[in-house]
Amino acid sequence: MTPYEFRRAVRNGAFRGPTAGHCGEFAQANLAIMPEAYALAFLRFCNANPKACPLLAVGDPGAYAIDALGRDLDIRTDVPAYNVYREGRLVERVESLSELWQPDFVVFAIGCSFSFEAMLAREGIPLRHVEEGRNVPMYRTTIPNRRAGVFGGELVVSMRPMRGADAIRAVQITSRFPGVHGAPIHIGTPSALGIADLARPDFGDPVTIRDGELPVFWACGVTPQTALMAARLPLAIAHAPGHMLMTDIENTSLAVF
Amino acid sequence: MTPYEFRRAVRNGAFRGPTAGHCGEFAQANLAIMPEAYALAFLRFCNANPKACPLLAVGDPGAYAIDALGRDLDIRTDVPAYNVYREGRLVERVESLSELWQPDFVVFAIGCSFSFEAMLAREGIPLRHVEEGRNVPMYRTTIPNRRAGVFGGELVVSMRPMRGADAIRAVQITSRFPGVHGAPIHIGTPSALGIADLARPDFGDPVTIRDGELPVFWACGVTPQTALMAARLPLAIAHAPGHMLMTDIENTSLAVF
Repeated sequence: MTPYEFRRAVRNGAFRGPTAGHCGEFAQANLAIMPEAYALAFLRFCNANPKACPLLAVGDPGAYAIDALGRDLDIRTDVPAYNVYREGRLVERVESLSELWQPDFVVFAIGCSFSFEAMLAREGIPLRHVEEGRNVPMYRTTIPNRRAGVFGGELVVSMRPMRGADAIRAVQITSRFPGVHGAPIHIGTPSALGIADLARPDFGDPVTIRDGELPVFWACGVTPQTALMAARLPLAIAHAPGHMLMTDIENTSLAVF
Repeated sequence: MTPYEFRRAVRNGAFRGPTAGHCGEFAQANLAIMPEAYALAFLRFCNANPKACPLLAVGDPGAYAIDALGRDLDIRTDVPAYNVYREGRLVERVESLSELWQPDFVVFAIGCSFSFEAMLAREGIPLRHVEEGRNVPMYRTTIPNRRAGVFGGELVVSMRPMRGADAIRAVQITSRFPGVHGAPIHIGTPSALGIADLARPDFGDPVTIRDGELPVFWACGVTPQTALMAARLPLAIAHAPGHMLMTDIENTSLAVF
């Protein structure tokens, strides 16, 4: 199935589940939608924190079609599930934005770790959370984001345990993909990031860390979501966790080297 | 002289000239300043055209200090010369923005080719315009920029002639620096970009192209300036050509690999 066909299946209700594992050669995107009044500050926030918030595209104000992301794409209907936040609180989960859409909405599509995980898997680097059938563990850190207007907070990271040689190769591979979080931000001691206990992630599931493995930490796309919620906008919309926007962007095209 | 000391020399009027060749280890920045009403569209334009408009930093609305660019920096006084545009026309060149500053101004600092030229020179790749004591030749192309609001137009490129082996090495080196225009966008046939005659650049000076050399084209920071002028904003400000903002950002820190 092509990404175009996948989005059609979502649009007509034939597909409603999590998107992991589908159209593996193509980038999936985190979604953030907000009124134009907040868009400049949020865009500045993303630019100032590019490892956590790598932008794939930003829509024209009011536009639900974004050519840079995909052919004949309609952001109101092409994502399997959306979370609706009012004053920073999750108030609703919906399967379409047709009734909520406003002419001042601005759409942000942010790169997702699925893309670099596909690259790591291709190079034979084992991913523990995939082996164990879990979500990747994610942790709040004490590292402050660069603030922009109402958006601030701290960096959220994802963690993948690896042997040293795999960690080195993973640095090389992910460095080529700054558009999907890029190189890790830390290897080793969790306390350097303010993480007390790897067995108790703030999001996702814990995974086994074997003897001789190092925790490798990447900036995580949950960072802009927590910043968006903490800013308590009157109205903001995101994809439901795991239910991403499928784009026509080939993962390989995101390599800078 | 450190970048901090250099900016102080500018601020107190001791330095007023072009900035090429000064503080060679540090990034210099193209400057664009406009009222907040246009800032979201311009920021979207830069994000949509990252090779031509690689952002080093965006200021808070109204802010003339930008910590991400340098210590105790004052954008109103720390650039040797500014061009003032009204309705897209150059109306004035000034040495300070103290009288023109508005509380709704947003500052954009865009990466500059001086940074990657320093990297090429370090690797022993000769730069013809430097050898010949000229400005780099720049050309308007027929390649459309991705449009964002009032900002559109076509890509402007700079050209450096090189032997094949040097061109290959230059691709490798500049690919590491997406924050300062990154890899070239074209090698060879100028007509593929809609350039009729390399001897007649639209900006800068012509340079000698020797037998066996290929023209190598990079996206150029003049692109956002021409887009800004063509949009005919009531008021916009840029650095005067060649008179850049000196930052505290080390060129080497911009490498993604």
